[in-house]
Amino acid sequence: MHKLQDLVERIVAFRDARDWKQFHNPKDMSLSLVLEATEVMEHFQWKNKDEMEEYVKTNSDAIGDELADTLYWVLLMSKDLGIDVVAALDEKMTKNEEKYPVDKAKGSHKKYNEL
Amino acid sequence: MHKLQDLVERIVAFRDARDWKQFHNPKDMSLSLVLEATEVMEHFQWKNKDEMEEYVKTNSDAIGDELADTLYWVLLMSKDLGIDVVAALDEKMTKNEEKYPVDKAKGSHKKYNEL
Amino acid sequence: MHKLQDLVERIVAFRDARDWKQFHNPKDMSLSLVLEATEVMEHFQWKNKDEMEEYVKTNSDAIGDELADTLYWVLLMSKDLGIDVVAALDEKMTKNEEKYPVDKAKGSHKKYNEL
Amino acid sequence: MHKLQDLVERIVAFRDARDWKQFHNPKDMSLSLVLEATEVMEHFQWKNKDEMEEYVKTNSDAIGDELADTLYWVLLMSKDLGIDVVAALDEKMTKNEEKYPVDKAKGSHKKYNEL
Repeated sequence: MHKLQDLVERIVAFRDARDWKQFHNPKDMSLSLVLEATEVMEHFQWKNKDEMEEYVKTNSDAIGDELADTLYWVLLMSKDLGIDVVAALDEKMTKNEEKYPVDKAKGSHKKYNEL
Repeated sequence: MHKLQDLVERIVAFRDARDWKQFHNPKDMSLSLVLEATEVMEHFQWKNKDEMEEYVKTNSDAIGDELADTLYWVLLMSKDLGIDVVAALDEKMTKNEEKYPVDKAKGSHKKYNEL
Repeated sequence: MHKLQDLVERIVAFRDARDWKQFHNPKDMSLSLVLEATEVMEHFQWKNKDEMEEYVKTNSDAIGDELADTLYWVLLMSKDLGIDVVAALDEKMTKNEEKYPVDKAKGSHKKYNEL
Repeated sequence: MHKLQDLVERIVAFRDARDWKQFHNPKDMSLSLVLEATEVMEHFQWKNKDEMEEYVKTNSDAIGDELADTLYWVLLMSKDLGIDVVAALDEKMTKNEEKYPVDKAKGSHKKYNEL
């Protein structure tokens, strides 16, 4: 993996060279985030388990492209809002470990408040 | 920022300790990705520019929480599908720089095929 | 307006002639519903108030196309699940009128639990 | 089913009594449309075929509630944009019947351009 910080700087430099910050209010950025996430999801529409397994073998580049687009907006929104999203996720994992204790959550897809 | 690779390993260990991989087919993971992305977007629903500026000042923890949840699925899906998403985004930036040349794209929010 | 019931019957006949009911489990149908709704939203990405006003004047056919696709899934999912969605919305409006009393909700975009 | 036109008038009267039209630009309305559609989808997250069949038996009111919320925005957006969405869907069905001829599309979930 590359260094994430370098990537964030590359994204910001790309954006600022094009003078696009004027468009990047949180609402429109989050709208783009959702659109990219749905493009990931569209890859799996209508496919059953077997079809998905077959599909991902030969389409991981295309799927990776959409995941990358989603990551783009996660990183740029976080940067603009002054959020260290990697630290935020790290903290969240600590909370998740408490919300979903292994003995209760093992093998279940219930939400923590239904366990 | 923490090391991203450590975070991915923490997420996978969290998941595997709970025996959740059985649920993690690409369709359901992408569905979760979309749901988390829409929770980011929900923060900005109905708010105008001034209200958003005010809102992000006092709610960056809550917004960061939803961005972290979105990142969680980007990282876990990528891991499961054998995709190096940081490298994929790095390559994508090279393509973006070509698709949106500074002299044509500067100050415009048009798509590359409309520039 | 045409009769809605005739339209639902046309949609079901279209689907059944193509033997597509086998794919129409609730998860995949709802996934399609979300994808069509995001295609409506995509029309307004990055546009400010003035740009939107201009845009809707000359693109109402294209927007109507995506709204129609969204309605398609609302109607077909409802039909398959035995839900009278028009009656459900009518009942919901009664609840909404109680949740958002005019004197409290007038001119505010707050959620009912924040009024 | 109730008369759809009456329902649209009820929705508009509800909105206008609360002076909410000021918030109802197309972008924010479409954002709400997407959020409601994802709430439909959330019902089916992680569930396999058997779990879904069981779930819909006892939760059709809750699902109908979210489908109704989605329909609300389809109808109100269409009304505001001067779109007769039922006629639009009726016309779309004519196009769909041509794009997906029975002999080619039968039993396949491929897109029309892949048939």
